[in-house]
Amino acid sequence: MGQGMTQNPGTILVRPQMGENIGAAARAMLNFGLDHMRIVAPRDGWPNPAAVAMASGAGRVLDAALLCDDLPAALGDFHFVFATTARPRDMTTPVYSPEAAMRLAAEKIAAGQRVGIMFGPERAGLENDDIARANAIITVPVNPEYPSLNLAQCVLLVGYEWRRATQEITAVEPSMPGTEPATAQEIAHLADHYEDRLEEAGFFFPAHKAQAMKLKLRNMWSSFPMTAQDVRMFHGMMRQLVRWKDSAD
Amino acid sequence: MGQGMTQNPGTILVRPQMGENIGAAARAMLNFGLDHMRIVAPRDGWPNPAAVAMASGAGRVLDAALLCDDLPAALGDFHFVFATTARPRDMTTPVYSPEAAMRLAAEKIAAGQRVGIMFGPERAGLENDDIARANAIITVPVNPEYPSLNLAQCVLLVGYEWRRATQEITAVEPSMPGTEPATAQEIAHLADHYEDRLEEAGFFFPAHKAQAMKLKLRNMWSSFPMTAQDVRMFHGMMRQLVRWKDSAD
Repeated sequence: MGQGMTQNPGTILVRPQMGENIGAAARAMLNFGLDHMRIVAPRDGWPNPAAVAMASGAGRVLDAALLCDDLPAALGDFHFVFATTARPRDMTTPVYSPEAAMRLAAEKIAAGQRVGIMFGPERAGLENDDIARANAIITVPVNPEYPSLNLAQCVLLVGYEWRRATQEITAVEPSMPGTEPATAQEIAHLADHYEDRLEEAGFFFPAHKAQAMKLKLRNMWSSFPMTAQDVRMFHGMMRQLVRWKDSAD
Repeated sequence: MGQGMTQNPGTILVRPQMGENIGAAARAMLNFGLDHMRIVAPRDGWPNPAAVAMASGAGRVLDAALLCDDLPAALGDFHFVFATTARPRDMTTPVYSPEAAMRLAAEKIAAGQRVGIMFGPERAGLENDDIARANAIITVPVNPEYPSLNLAQCVLLVGYEWRRATQEITAVEPSMPGTEPATAQEIAHLADHYEDRLEEAGFFFPAHKAQAMKLKLRNMWSSFPMTAQDVRMFHGMMRQLVRWKDSAD
Protein backbone atom coordinates (compact mmCIF):
# COMPACT_ATOMS: atom_id res chain seq x y z
CA MET A 1 0.00 0.00 0.00
CA GLY A 2 1.30 3.43 -0.87
CA GLN A 3 1.85 6.15 1.65
CA GLY A 4 -1.37 7.86 0.61
CA MET A 5 -3.27 4.80 1.70
CA THR A 6 -2.69 5.44 5.35
CA GLN A 7 -3.18 9.19 5.20
CA ASN A 8 -6.27 9.59 3.04
CA PRO A 9 -9.45 7.60 2.57
CA GLY A 10 -9.44 5.21 -0.37
CA THR A 11 -12.04 5.75 -3.09
CA ILE A 12 -13.65 2.49 -4.18
CA LEU A 13 -15.55 2.64 -7.48
CA VAL A 14 -17.87 -0.36 -7.53
CA ARG A 15 -18.68 -1.72 -11.00
CA PRO A 16 -18.28 1.66 -12.75
CA GLN A 17 -19.68 1.82 -16.27
CA MET A 18 -18.26 4.72 -18.29
CA GLY A 19 -14.51 5.26 -18.50
CA GLU A 20 -15.20 9.00 -18.69
CA ASN A 21 -16.72 8.87 -15.24
CA ILE A 22 -13.73 7.02 -13.80
CA GLY A 23 -11.47 9.72 -15.22
CA ALA A 24 -13.72 12.49 -13.90
CA ALA A 25 -13.73 10.82 -10.48
CA ALA A 26 -9.90 10.79 -10.52
CA ARG A 27 -9.90 14.53 -11.20
CA ALA A 28 -12.45 15.21 -8.49
CA MET A 29 -10.34 13.19 -6.03
CA LEU A 30 -7.11 14.96 -6.79
CA ASN A 31 -8.78 18.36 -6.48
CA PHE A 32 -9.05 17.63 -2.80
CA GLY A 33 -5.92 15.59 -2.29
CA LEU A 34 -7.34 12.07 -2.53
CA ASP A 35 -5.12 9.78 -4.56
CA HIS A 36 -5.90 6.18 -3.65
CA MET A 37 -8.46 4.62 -6.02
CA ARG A 38 -9.70 1.05 -6.22
CA ILE A 39 -11.83 -0.12 -9.12
CA VAL A 40 -14.07 -3.15 -8.72
CA ALA A 41 -15.12 -5.05 -11.84
CA PRO A 42 -15.34 -2.08 -14.26
CA ARG A 43 -17.85 -2.78 -17.03
CA ASP A 44 -15.46 -1.92 -19.87
CA GLY A 45 -12.33 -3.56 -18.46
CA TRP A 46 -9.13 -1.93 -17.32
CA PRO A 47 -7.09 0.03 -18.28
CA ASN A 48 -9.65 2.20 -20.06
CA PRO A 49 -8.51 4.80 -22.63
CA ALA A 50 -11.64 6.92 -22.08
CA ALA A 51 -10.77 7.21 -18.40
CA VAL A 52 -7.24 8.31 -19.21
CA ALA A 53 -8.45 10.90 -21.71
CA MET A 54 -10.86 12.41 -19.20
CA ALA A 55 -8.44 12.37 -16.27
CA SER A 56 -6.15 15.00 -17.79
CA GLY A 57 -3.61 15.95 -15.18
CA ALA A 58 -4.93 13.37 -12.72
CA GLY A 59 -3.62 10.38 -14.67
CA ARG A 60 -1.37 9.41 -11.79
CA VAL A 61 -4.45 8.54 -9.75
CA LEU A 62 -5.46 6.09 -12.47
CA ASP A 63 -1.91 4.74 -12.84
CA ALA A 64 -1.83 3.93 -9.14
CA ALA A 65 -5.39 2.55 -9.02
CA LEU A 66 -5.88 -1.03 -7.86
CA LEU A 67 -8.09 -3.23 -10.02
CA CYS A 68 -10.12 -5.68 -7.90
CA ASP A 69 -12.20 -8.64 -9.05
CA ASP A 70 -14.84 -8.25 -6.43
CA LEU A 71 -15.85 -6.08 -3.51
CA PRO A 72 -14.49 -8.30 -0.71
CA ALA A 73 -11.05 -8.16 -2.34
CA ALA A 74 -11.30 -4.37 -2.58
CA LEU A 75 -12.40 -3.88 1.03
CA GLY A 76 -10.24 -6.47 2.75
CA ASP A 77 -7.65 -4.27 4.41
CA PHE A 78 -9.86 -1.34 5.39
CA HIS A 79 -10.84 -0.91 9.02
CA PHE A 80 -13.85 1.24 8.30
CA VAL A 81 -15.86 1.53 5.10
CA PHE A 82 -18.49 4.06 4.08
CA ALA A 83 -21.09 3.43 1.36
CA THR A 84 -22.52 6.39 -0.53
CA THR A 85 -26.22 6.15 -1.36
CA ALA A 86 -28.70 8.55 -2.89
CA ARG A 87 -31.13 8.10 -0.04
CA PRO A 88 -31.15 6.21 3.24
CA ARG A 89 -32.31 2.62 2.76
CA ASP A 90 -34.34 0.50 5.05
CA MET A 91 -31.34 -0.73 7.00
CA THR A 92 -29.89 -0.23 10.42
CA THR A 93 -26.51 1.07 9.23
CA PRO A 94 -25.91 4.60 10.58
CA VAL A 95 -26.27 7.44 8.07
CA TYR A 96 -23.90 10.40 8.01
CA SER A 97 -23.77 13.66 6.12
CA PRO A 98 -20.59 14.05 4.05
CA GLU A 99 -19.28 16.48 6.65
CA ALA A 100 -19.87 14.21 9.65
CA ALA A 101 -18.54 11.23 7.70
CA MET A 102 -15.29 12.90 6.76
CA ARG A 103 -14.76 14.15 10.29
CA LEU A 104 -15.12 10.60 11.49
CA ALA A 105 -12.79 9.41 8.72
CA ALA A 106 -10.19 11.99 9.68
CA GLU A 107 -10.31 10.87 13.31
CA LYS A 108 -9.94 7.22 12.35
CA ILE A 109 -7.10 7.89 9.95
CA ALA A 110 -5.31 10.03 12.50
CA ALA A 111 -5.54 7.02 14.83
CA GLY A 112 -3.80 4.84 12.22
CA GLN A 113 -6.85 3.16 10.67
CA ARG A 114 -7.51 2.68 6.99
CA VAL A 115 -10.80 4.12 5.72
CA GLY A 116 -12.51 3.47 2.40
CA ILE A 117 -15.49 5.06 0.65
CA MET A 118 -17.59 3.06 -1.80
CA PHE A 119 -19.31 4.68 -4.77
CA GLY A 120 -21.80 2.66 -6.80
CA PRO A 121 -22.33 2.29 -10.54
CA GLU A 122 -23.68 5.31 -12.39
CA ARG A 123 -27.28 4.30 -12.89
CA ALA A 124 -28.34 2.05 -10.09
CA GLY A 125 -25.94 2.90 -7.29
CA LEU A 126 -24.75 0.37 -4.75
CA GLU A 127 -26.78 -2.77 -4.18
CA ASN A 128 -27.96 -3.86 -0.77
CA ASP A 129 -25.34 -6.61 -0.70
CA ASP A 130 -22.65 -3.97 -1.24
CA ILE A 131 -24.06 -1.70 1.43
CA ALA A 132 -24.22 -4.58 3.89
CA ARG A 133 -20.41 -4.58 3.84
CA ALA A 134 -20.22 -0.95 4.97
CA ASN A 135 -19.85 0.29 8.51
CA ALA A 136 -21.74 3.46 7.73
CA ILE A 137 -23.61 5.27 4.97
CA ILE A 138 -23.00 8.71 3.49
CA THR A 139 -25.95 10.51 1.96
CA VAL A 140 -25.55 13.90 0.29
CA PRO A 141 -28.41 16.21 1.27
CA VAL A 142 -29.62 17.02 -2.25
CA ASN A 143 -32.85 18.67 -3.29
CA PRO A 144 -35.35 15.79 -3.09
CA GLU A 145 -37.13 17.15 -6.15
CA TYR A 146 -33.96 16.94 -8.23
CA PRO A 147 -31.41 14.50 -6.86
CA SER A 148 -29.25 14.04 -9.96
CA LEU A 149 -25.68 13.88 -8.68
CA ASN A 150 -23.38 11.93 -10.94
CA LEU A 151 -20.49 9.76 -9.83
CA ALA A 152 -17.76 12.39 -10.10
CA GLN A 153 -19.93 15.01 -8.38
CA CYS A 154 -20.50 12.69 -5.48
CA VAL A 155 -16.76 12.01 -5.26
CA LEU A 156 -16.16 15.76 -5.46
CA LEU A 157 -18.43 16.59 -2.53
CA VAL A 158 -16.99 13.87 -0.33
CA GLY A 159 -13.44 14.94 -1.25
CA TYR A 160 -14.33 18.54 -0.46
CA GLU A 161 -15.52 17.52 3.00
CA TRP A 162 -12.40 15.41 3.47
CA ARG A 163 -10.25 18.44 2.83
CA ARG A 164 -12.38 20.59 5.10
CA ALA A 165 -12.20 18.02 7.87
CA THR A 166 -8.44 17.58 7.67
CA GLN A 167 -7.64 21.25 7.65
CA GLU A 168 -9.27 21.43 11.09
CA ILE A 169 -8.47 18.13 12.84
CA THR A 170 -5.96 18.17 15.67
CA ALA A 171 -6.09 15.98 18.78
CA VAL A 172 -6.22 12.22 18.52
CA GLU A 173 -7.16 9.58 21.06
CA PRO A 174 -4.37 7.08 21.69
CA SER A 175 -5.44 3.45 21.36
CA MET A 176 -4.78 0.67 23.87
CA PRO A 177 -3.14 -2.59 22.82
CA GLY A 178 -5.67 -5.27 21.85
CA THR A 179 -8.27 -2.68 20.98
CA GLU A 180 -7.22 -2.11 17.39
CA PRO A 181 -10.33 -2.21 15.22
CA ALA A 182 -11.08 -5.24 13.11
CA THR A 183 -10.50 -4.85 9.38
CA ALA A 184 -13.30 -5.27 6.86
CA GLN A 185 -11.74 -8.59 5.87
CA GLU A 186 -11.78 -9.86 9.44
CA ILE A 187 -15.41 -8.90 9.77
CA ALA A 188 -16.25 -10.49 6.43
CA HIS A 189 -14.61 -13.75 7.56
CA LEU A 190 -16.56 -13.64 10.79
CA ALA A 191 -19.79 -13.05 8.88
CA ASP A 192 -18.95 -16.01 6.61
CA HIS A 193 -18.18 -18.25 9.57
CA TYR A 194 -21.47 -17.49 11.30
CA GLU A 195 -23.48 -17.68 8.11
CA ASP A 196 -22.03 -21.12 7.26
CA ARG A 197 -22.61 -22.62 10.70
CA LEU A 198 -26.05 -21.08 11.14
CA GLU A 199 -26.97 -22.43 7.72
CA GLU A 200 -25.98 -25.93 8.87
CA ALA A 201 -27.90 -25.39 12.07
CA GLY A 202 -31.07 -24.51 10.15
CA PHE A 203 -31.24 -20.91 11.39
CA PHE A 204 -32.20 -19.37 8.05
CA PHE A 205 -35.80 -20.48 8.01
CA PRO A 206 -38.22 -20.28 6.28
CA ALA A 207 -36.34 -20.50 2.99
CA HIS A 208 -38.01 -17.48 1.38
CA LYS A 209 -36.73 -15.29 4.20
CA ALA A 210 -33.19 -16.70 4.22
CA GLN A 211 -31.68 -14.05 1.96
CA ALA A 212 -33.14 -11.19 3.96
CA MET A 213 -31.99 -12.77 7.22
CA LYS A 214 -28.45 -13.19 5.89
CA LEU A 215 -28.34 -9.60 4.72
CA LYS A 216 -29.60 -8.37 8.07
CA LEU A 217 -26.99 -10.42 9.87
CA ARG A 218 -24.17 -9.08 7.68
CA ASN A 219 -25.41 -5.56 8.25
CA MET A 220 -25.37 -6.20 11.94
CA TRP A 221 -21.78 -7.39 12.07
CA SER A 222 -20.52 -4.39 10.17
CA SER A 223 -22.59 -1.97 12.24
CA PHE A 224 -20.65 -2.89 15.40
CA PRO A 225 -17.37 -1.13 16.16
CA MET A 226 -15.62 -4.48 16.65
CA THR A 227 -12.04 -4.85 17.75
CA ALA A 228 -9.83 -7.66 16.46
CA GLN A 229 -10.22 -9.19 19.91
CA ASP A 230 -14.03 -9.15 19.66
CA VAL A 231 -13.81 -10.96 16.35
CA ARG A 232 -11.58 -13.65 17.87
CA MET A 233 -14.04 -14.02 20.74
CA PHE A 234 -16.97 -14.56 18.37
CA HIS A 235 -15.02 -17.12 16.34
CA GLY A 236 -14.12 -18.93 19.56
CA MET A 237 -17.73 -18.95 20.77
CA MET A 238 -19.00 -20.49 17.56
CA ARG A 239 -16.21 -23.08 17.43
CA GLN A 240 -16.99 -24.14 20.96
CA LEU A 241 -20.72 -24.39 20.25
CA VAL A 242 -19.96 -26.64 17.28
CA ARG A 243 -17.70 -28.83 19.46
CA TRP A 244 -20.54 -29.03 21.97
CA LYS A 245 -22.89 -30.15 19.22
CA ASP A 246 -20.36 -32.67 17.92
CA SER A 247 -19.74 -34.10 21.40
CA ALA A 248 -23.49 -34.73 21.63
CA ASP A 249 -23.49 -36.84 18.46
CA MET B 1 -38.19 38.64 -10.24
CA GLY B 2 -39.54 35.22 -9.36
CA GLN B 3 -40.13 34.07 -5.84
CA GLY B 4 -36.84 32.11 -5.86
CA MET B 5 -35.01 35.35 -6.33
CA THR B 6 -35.69 36.58 -2.84
CA GLN B 7 -35.24 33.22 -1.15
CA ASN B 8 -32.10 31.87 -2.83
CA PRO B 9 -28.91 33.42 -4.12
CA GLY B 10 -28.82 34.13 -7.84
CA THR B 11 -26.16 32.41 -9.93
CA ILE B 12 -24.49 34.76 -12.40
CA LEU B 13 -22.52 33.11 -15.20
CA VAL B 14 -20.17 35.72 -16.61
CA ARG B 15 -19.25 35.29 -20.29
CA PRO B 16 -19.65 31.50 -20.26
CA GLN B 17 -18.19 29.72 -23.27
CA MET B 18 -19.58 26.21 -23.72
CA GLY B 19 -23.32 25.60 -23.73
CA GLU B 20 -22.67 22.23 -22.09
CA ASN B 21 -21.21 23.98 -19.08
CA ILE B 22 -24.22 26.27 -18.77
CA GLY B 23 -26.47 23.20 -18.79
CA ALA B 24 -24.28 21.40 -16.27
CA ALA B 25 -24.34 24.48 -14.04
CA ALA B 26 -28.16 24.46 -14.19
CA ARG B 27 -28.18 20.85 -13.01
CA ALA B 28 -25.69 21.55 -10.24
CA MET B 29 -27.84 24.46 -9.08
CA LEU B 30 -31.06 22.54 -8.98
CA ASN B 31 -29.43 19.69 -7.06
CA PHE B 32 -29.21 22.06 -4.14
CA GLY B 33 -32.35 24.07 -4.71
CA LEU B 34 -30.91 27.08 -6.57
CA ASP B 35 -33.06 28.11 -9.48
CA HIS B 36 -32.28 31.70 -10.38
CA MET B 37 -29.64 32.01 -13.15
CA ARG B 38 -28.38 35.05 -14.99
CA ILE B 39 -26.18 34.75 -18.04
CA VAL B 40 -23.92 37.61 -19.05
CA ALA B 41 -22.78 37.82 -22.69
CA PRO B 42 -22.52 34.09 -23.43
CA ARG B 43 -19.96 33.41 -26.17
CA ASP B 44 -22.31 31.30 -28.31
CA GLY B 45 -25.46 33.39 -27.90
CA TRP B 46 -28.70 32.50 -26.22
CA PRO B 47 -30.72 30.28 -26.17
CA ASN B 48 -28.14 27.55 -26.65
CA PRO B 49 -29.23 24.03 -27.70
CA ALA B 50 -26.14 22.43 -26.15
CA ALA B 51 -27.08 23.92 -22.81
CA VAL B 52 -30.62 22.56 -23.09
CA ALA B 53 -29.36 19.10 -24.03
CA MET B 54 -27.01 18.96 -21.05
CA ALA B 55 -29.51 20.35 -18.55
CA SER B 56 -31.77 17.31 -18.71
CA GLY B 57 -34.37 17.70 -16.02
CA ALA B 58 -33.12 21.13 -15.03
CA GLY B 59 -34.36 22.84 -18.18
CA ARG B 60 -36.67 25.03 -16.17
CA VAL B 61 -33.62 26.79 -14.69
CA LEU B 62 -32.53 27.68 -18.24
CA ASP B 63 -36.06 28.67 -19.26
CA ALA B 64 -36.22 31.11 -16.39
CA ALA B 65 -32.66 32.42 -16.85
CA LEU B 66 -32.17 36.13 -17.51
CA LEU B 67 -29.90 37.05 -20.40
CA CYS B 68 -27.88 40.20 -19.64
CA ASP B 69 -25.72 42.27 -22.00
CA ASP B 70 -23.13 43.17 -19.44
CA LEU B 71 -22.20 42.64 -15.83
CA PRO B 72 -23.56 45.92 -14.44
CA ALA B 73 -26.98 45.03 -15.88
CA ALA B 74 -26.81 41.58 -14.31
CA LEU B 75 -25.79 42.83 -10.89
CA GLY B 76 -28.00 45.90 -10.66
CA ASP B 77 -30.67 44.72 -8.25
CA PHE B 78 -28.52 42.61 -5.91
CA HIS B 79 -27.69 43.94 -2.47
CA PHE B 80 -24.63 41.76 -2.03
CA VAL B 81 -22.52 39.99 -4.63
CA PHE B 82 -19.87 37.30 -4.26
CA ALA B 83 -17.21 36.59 -6.88
CA THR B 84 -15.76 33.07 -7.11
CA THR B 85 -12.04 32.88 -7.84
CA ALA B 86 -9.58 30.03 -8.00
CA ARG B 87 -7.19 31.73 -5.62
CA PRO B 88 -7.25 34.93 -3.60
CA ARG B 89 -6.04 37.86 -5.69
CA ASP B 90 -4.07 40.82 -4.62
CA MET B 91 -7.11 42.82 -3.59
CA THR B 92 -8.64 44.15 -0.47
CA THR B 93 -11.96 42.40 -0.95
CA PRO B 94 -12.66 39.96 1.92
CA VAL B 95 -12.22 36.27 1.05
CA TYR B 96 -14.66 33.62 2.33
CA SER B 97 -14.73 29.85 2.21
CA PRO B 98 -17.85 28.51 0.48
CA GLU B 99 -19.25 27.60 3.88
CA ALA B 100 -18.71 31.00 5.46
CA ALA B 101 -19.98 32.71 2.31
CA MET B 102 -23.23 30.79 2.20
CA ARG B 103 -23.83 31.36 5.91
CA LEU B 104 -23.46 35.06 5.27
CA ALA B 105 -25.73 34.78 2.23
CA ALA B 106 -28.37 32.98 4.29
CA GLU B 107 -28.28 35.72 6.91
CA LYS B 108 -28.62 38.46 4.31
CA ILE B 109 -31.42 36.70 2.48
CA ALA B 110 -33.24 36.08 5.74
CA ALA B 111 -32.99 39.83 6.30
CA GLY B 112 -34.71 40.43 2.95
CA GLN B 113 -31.66 41.21 0.82
CA ARG B 114 -30.92 39.83 -2.63
CA VAL B 115 -27.61 37.98 -2.97
CA GLY B 116 -25.80 37.01 -6.15
CA ILE B 117 -22.79 34.80 -6.88
CA MET B 118 -20.61 35.40 -9.95
CA PHE B 119 -18.84 32.59 -11.76
CA GLY B 120 -16.28 33.41 -14.43
CA PRO B 121 -15.65 31.99 -17.91
CA GLU B 122 -14.28 28.45 -18.07
CA ARG B 123 -10.65 29.12 -18.88
CA ALA B 124 -9.61 32.41 -17.44
CA GLY B 125 -12.10 32.94 -14.63
CA LEU B 126 -13.34 36.35 -13.62
CA GLU B 127 -11.26 39.38 -14.53
CA ASN B 128 -10.13 41.92 -11.99
CA ASP B 129 -12.72 44.38 -13.32
CA ASP B 130 -15.46 41.83 -12.63
CA ILE B 131 -14.17 41.07 -9.15
CA ALA B 132 -14.00 44.74 -8.34
CA ARG B 133 -17.81 44.75 -8.53
CA ALA B 134 -18.12 42.11 -5.83
CA ASN B 135 -18.61 42.71 -2.13
CA ALA B 136 -16.73 39.56 -1.24
CA ILE B 137 -14.78 36.69 -2.76
CA ILE B 138 -15.40 32.96 -2.46
CA THR B 139 -12.41 30.65 -2.87
CA VAL B 140 -12.81 26.89 -2.76
CA PRO B 141 -9.99 25.30 -0.74
CA VAL B 142 -8.68 22.98 -3.46
CA ASN B 143 -5.43 21.05 -3.54
CA PRO B 144 -2.93 23.72 -4.66
CA GLU B 145 -1.08 21.10 -6.69
CA TYR B 146 -4.20 20.28 -8.69
CA PRO B 147 -6.77 23.07 -8.70
CA SER B 148 -8.84 22.01 -11.70
CA LEU B 149 -12.45 22.72 -10.73
CA ASN B 150 -14.67 23.36 -13.71
CA LEU B 151 -17.57 25.78 -13.81
CA ALA B 152 -20.32 23.32 -12.88
CA GLN B 153 -18.21 21.82 -10.07
CA CYS B 154 -17.69 25.24 -8.59
CA VAL B 155 -21.43 25.92 -8.79
CA LEU B 156 -22.06 22.51 -7.23
CA LEU B 157 -19.86 23.18 -4.20
CA VAL B 158 -21.33 26.60 -3.58
CA GLY B 159 -24.86 25.19 -3.99
CA TYR B 160 -24.01 22.41 -1.55
CA GLU B 161 -22.90 24.95 1.03
CA TRP B 162 -26.03 27.00 0.40
CA ARG B 163 -28.16 24.01 1.22
CA ARG B 164 -26.05 23.18 4.26
CA ALA B 165 -26.35 26.73 5.51
CA THR B 166 -30.10 26.80 5.14
CA GLN B 167 -30.94 23.34 6.41
CA GLU B 168 -29.70 22.07 9.70
CA ILE B 169 -27.92 19.04 8.38
CA THR B 170 -26.01 16.84 10.73
CA ALA B 171 -25.64 13.12 11.15
CA VAL B 172 -28.98 11.46 10.58
CA GLU B 173 -29.81 8.88 13.18
CA PRO B 174 -31.41 5.79 11.69
CA SER B 175 -34.98 5.65 12.92
CA MET B 176 -36.65 2.82 11.06
CA PRO B 177 -39.04 0.53 12.94
CA GLY B 178 -37.12 -2.18 14.77
CA THR B 179 -34.04 -0.01 14.99
CA GLU B 180 -34.71 1.51 18.39
CA PRO B 181 -31.67 0.91 20.57
CA ALA B 182 -31.74 -2.01 22.94
CA THR B 183 -32.19 -1.16 26.60
CA ALA B 184 -29.53 -1.97 29.16
CA GLN B 185 -31.86 -4.64 30.52
CA GLU B 186 -32.23 -6.29 27.12
CA ILE B 187 -28.47 -6.35 26.71
CA ALA B 188 -28.02 -7.77 30.20
CA HIS B 189 -30.50 -10.57 29.41
CA LEU B 190 -28.64 -11.30 26.20
CA ALA B 191 -25.34 -11.43 28.08
CA ASP B 192 -26.89 -13.84 30.61
CA HIS B 193 -28.29 -16.06 27.88
CA TYR B 194 -24.93 -16.35 26.13
CA GLU B 195 -22.98 -16.78 29.35
CA ASP B 196 -25.26 -19.63 30.49
CA ARG B 197 -25.15 -21.53 27.21
CA LEU B 198 -21.43 -20.97 26.66
CA GLU B 199 -20.84 -22.22 30.21
CA GLU B 200 -22.72 -25.42 29.38
CA ALA B 201 -20.77 -25.69 26.14
CA GLY B 202 -17.45 -25.49 28.00
CA PHE B 203 -16.39 -22.18 26.46
CA PHE B 204 -15.00 -20.63 29.64
CA PHE B 205 -11.80 -22.62 29.83
CA PRO B 206 -9.39 -22.92 31.56
CA ALA B 207 -11.22 -22.33 34.85
CA HIS B 208 -8.81 -19.73 36.19
CA LYS B 209 -9.51 -17.54 33.17
CA ALA B 210 -13.29 -17.98 33.24
CA GLN B 211 -14.03 -14.84 35.24
CA ALA B 212 -11.92 -12.64 33.01
CA MET B 213 -13.48 -14.15 29.88
CA LYS B 214 -16.99 -13.54 31.18
CA LEU B 215 -16.17 -9.96 32.01
CA LYS B 216 -14.67 -9.40 28.57
CA LEU B 217 -17.77 -10.86 26.94
CA ARG B 218 -20.11 -8.65 28.97
CA ASN B 219 -17.99 -5.64 28.10
CA MET B 220 -18.22 -6.56 24.46
CA TRP B 221 -21.99 -6.80 24.36
CA SER B 222 -22.39 -3.40 25.90
CA SER B 223 -19.80 -1.83 23.63
CA PHE B 224 -21.95 -2.49 20.56
CA PRO B 225 -24.66 -0.02 19.56
CA MET B 226 -27.23 -2.83 19.45
CA THR B 227 -30.80 -2.40 18.36
CA ALA B 228 -33.64 -4.39 19.88
CA GLN B 229 -33.71 -6.28 16.60
CA ASP B 230 -30.01 -7.20 16.90
CA VAL B 231 -30.67 -8.55 20.39
CA ARG B 232 -33.54 -10.72 19.11
CA MET B 233 -31.30 -11.96 16.31
CA PHE B 234 -28.58 -13.02 18.76
CA HIS B 235 -31.11 -14.78 20.99
CA GLY B 236 -32.48 -16.59 17.95
CA MET B 237 -29.03 -17.65 16.79
CA MET B 238 -28.16 -19.18 20.14
CA ARG B 239 -31.53 -20.92 20.49
CA GLN B 240 -31.10 -22.48 17.07
CA LEU B 241 -27.54 -23.61 17.85
CA VAL B 242 -28.84 -25.32 20.99
CA ARG B 243 -31.62 -27.02 19.00
CA TRP B 244 -28.95 -28.17 16.53
CA LYS B 245 -26.94 -29.63 19.41
CA ASP B 246 -30.04 -31.29 20.88
CA SER B 247 -31.03 -32.79 17.54
CA ALA B 248 -27.57 -34.38 17.40
CA ASP B 249 -28.09 -36.12 20.77
